[in-house]
Amino acid sequence: MWSQKGVKLTAKQRGFHLVTSDVIQQLPELKLVSVGLLHLFIQHTSASLTLNENADPSVRHDFERYFNQAVPENEPYYEHLDEGSDDMPAHLKSSILGSSLSIPITNGRLNIGTWQGIYLCEHRNHGGNRSLVATIQGE
Amino acid sequence: MWSQKGVKLTAKQRGFHLVTSDVIQQLPELKLVSVGLLHLFIQHTSASLTLNENADPSVRHDFERYFNQAVPENEPYYEHLDEGSDDMPAHLKSSILGSSLSIPITNGRLNIGTWQGIYLCEHRNHGGNRSLVATIQGE
Amino acid sequence: MWSQKGVKLTAKQRGFHLVTSDVIQQLPELKLVSVGLLHLFIQHTSASLTLNENADPSVRHDFERYFNQAVPENEPYYEHLDEGSDDMPAHLKSSILGSSLSIPITNGRLNIGTWQGIYLCEHRNHGGNRSLVATIQGE
Repeated sequence: MWSQKGVKLTAKQRGFHLVTSDVIQQLPELKLVSVGLLHLFIQHTSASLTLNENADPSVRHDFERYFNQAVPENEPYYEHLDEGSDDMPAHLKSSILGSSLSIPITNGRLNIGTWQGIYLCEHRNHGGNRSLVATIQGE
Repeated sequence: MWSQKGVKLTAKQRGFHLVTSDVIQQLPELKLVSVGLLHLFIQHTSASLTLNENADPSVRHDFERYFNQAVPENEPYYEHLDEGSDDMPAHLKSSILGSSLSIPITNGRLNIGTWQGIYLCEHRNHGGNRSLVATIQGE
Repeated sequence: MWSQKGVKLTAKQRGFHLVTSDVIQQLPELKLVSVGLLHLFIQHTSASLTLNENADPSVRHDFERYFNQAVPENEPYYEHLDEGSDDMPAHLKSSILGSSLSIPITNGRLNIGTWQGIYLCEHRNHGGNRSLVATIQGE
């Protein structure tokens, strides 16, 4: 069985956002799969997807602070400056964190660990809505 | 054909560990697939999976030293401190390196390069056993 | 439907290279898939694959400069030195950026965003040709 559809995530402020339940609510097809995989793909180069701790909001705050110092704005060697000082770091963070996730599906549910959640990583100051393509396959 | 099962990796010390043969031994189903994919997913947020050099142990040592300086403990801006100084860096390293691998299967074997091996990246000082979900699909 | 084949990328200089059209031209099978996934896997530990901005070459130049300072050569703690000063950083960059991509296929085409392209990230000074395994599945 294959199912593919768009998933929309509303505009969020710069930072790391837990979107597990938002994504699952848009994918009732998950319940039809006993064994399979969910592939989530973000169609942007300045936002990304990752899995991490789903309980303590301070983890997401520390993610934002860490990546801001690890991938600074206004590096003297940046040439790509036309879209603002947050743009080139956003591209770099997007490739470090990645633009897709593959997650096992077992008995109609995402088979993630107790502490795992899906993060939308918004790297732009004003990123707007973000478009994902969700591909579900399995049996 | 779909096959899905848990793979257990015994507790390892903090660092990067070559686990290719341990994983393959737990997955005899690979031999049944002529063309397909293996998806390996770690159900934790403080350990990760990556592919890298499988021959010289000093590569894994250099990985540990590099990531310890790139993602330091005790950064003054960390808020998430309750679980020890190794915990927040472990979450960050987990997202930088990633929580899953997809590897092509060809004629019953992982179709990886000569020098590629699967690393379990243990980012905690005392991480315990680690649980993976292995999903094999193909024909 | 499953299809799997090798994709060759000719030797490129150290840096980040847009290879979207080169990859697609080697995969006419994409046109046969209405809903599916393309998995691209690089069989090396000193080059990597990522998706990022496909329009302005300065983005790729900034990628090269950023990763050269984030993962420096000649760190005093590196032990793995036998293959040249560019080798250990190449292994590290390869794991940070990743060795595979999964991309949705919709109506015979890669369903990537307007600004997304496939980068071959060549981390060695003299990397040679690079071998990919492309696995196409879908219906």
